[in-house]
Parts: sequence; structure tokens; C-alpha cells
Amino acid sequence: MDASRFAPLPEPPYYAVIFSSQRANTDPAGYAQTADRMVELAAQQPGFIGAESARDAEGFSITVSYWQDEASIRAWKANAEHRIAQETGQARWYEHYITRVSKVERAYSLK
Amino acid sequence: MDASRFAPLPEPPYYAVIFSSQRANTDPAGYAQTADRMVELAAQQPGFIGAESARDAEGFSITVSYWQDEASIRAWKANAEHRIAQETGQARWYEHYITRVSKVERAYSLK
Repeated sequence: MDASRFAPLPEPPYYAVIFSSQRANTDPAGYAQTADRMVELAAQQPGFIGAESARDAEGFSITVSYWQDEASIRAWKANAEHRIAQETGQARWYEHYITRVSKVERAYSLK
Repeated sequence: MDASRFAPLPEPPYYAVIFSSQRANTDPAGYAQTADRMVELAAQQPGFIGAESARDAEGFSITVSYWQDEASIRAWKANAEHRIAQETGQARWYEHYITRVSKVERAYSLK
């Protein structure tokens, strides 16, 4: 089993931030590097559990990041370097996106 | 804006089922047809709000389906045709998957 793409499976409750996005084109300048950097930076934040991401060939992506509590999510949203990335994304990269903050109540896996 | 890949954005609370999966190979026999059929079938179930899905070239996928309540999710999980697909997926298609059931507490979009 290749589990490297999966986030850990702690005992609920915890939080999931579901970020669905459509890029304006499939590979806008600076996008991929910043996306990778944001995952690296998120992983250093307090309360970060893990993240999962799938990007398809049409520029549609879903990234789900998992957090221990709401305070961690708010702190990450306000992180200075992350704010710059958010503003660049809004102005240049994304045609549309939706962010949904949810509380994981139960979870199970194949094995 | 191409909103066709996005699920509706109703007033929270509602539920999100986050299904992350790694296929054993990128295009196992019968997988794509069944995946499409399951989205079509889910859309006919009571309480279904919408679904978003991204499948990457390495066979990793995230599908998030949105539901009005827990009862709708349980009914969909128990649906006979869906059960056959779940069993086939477990036996043949997936190397690994995680399902997380979460309650959406707040949501916002780019525009």
C-alpha cells in the first residue's frame, strides 16, 4: 500500500478544510511552486494533521487539509506568507474556488 | 466562470463525505463507468446536494459528496447498487482509500 498521498487518520473529532478550485489555465505562472510551498508551510503550523490533494488535467483541484481545531485553521488563514499566496490566487490563478470548513465526525479506511 | 465542476453552496450546516482513494492502476477495468454511474445514482438520492471530484494522472482521487443530513448519507451507503460498487472497489480497484464524514460549519467562495 502506498499511503504517502493520504493524511493520517486520528480519532475524530478534528477539522477538514475542503478547498475546491478551478484554475484559469492548467499551469499558471508561479502556481505549482506556490502550491507546493503552501503545503510545506502548512505542515509547520500548530494543529496541522495532514493534507491530501488531487489536481486533474483540466485544472480542477481538490485539496483537503486536516487540523486539530478551529483556532489552528484561523491562524493558518492569517499566516502572512499564506495571505500573499491567497491574494495572488484570487487575483491571478483561480477562475473560481470554494472553501468549506467542516468537522470530521467519523472516518474509516480500506485496511 | 465555469461552475459546472462545483457543488452548490447552501447555508451550513450540511454534511460532506470526503472519499480519498488510490487506485491499484490508473484505469482498472470497469472503474470509470462505475464511478460515473455512482455520481448519477447519488444525484437521485434524497438529501443529495452535489459532488466534486478530481482524479489525477497517478490514480489518486478525491471525491467529496455533500448531503443534507446524516440519514441521507447512511441511506446512500446502504443503497443496493452502491453496495455492489463498494464491494467491487474494495476487491479490485483500490489499493487504499479513506472515507471521512464531516459536518460543514462555514463556507465561502471566490465570487
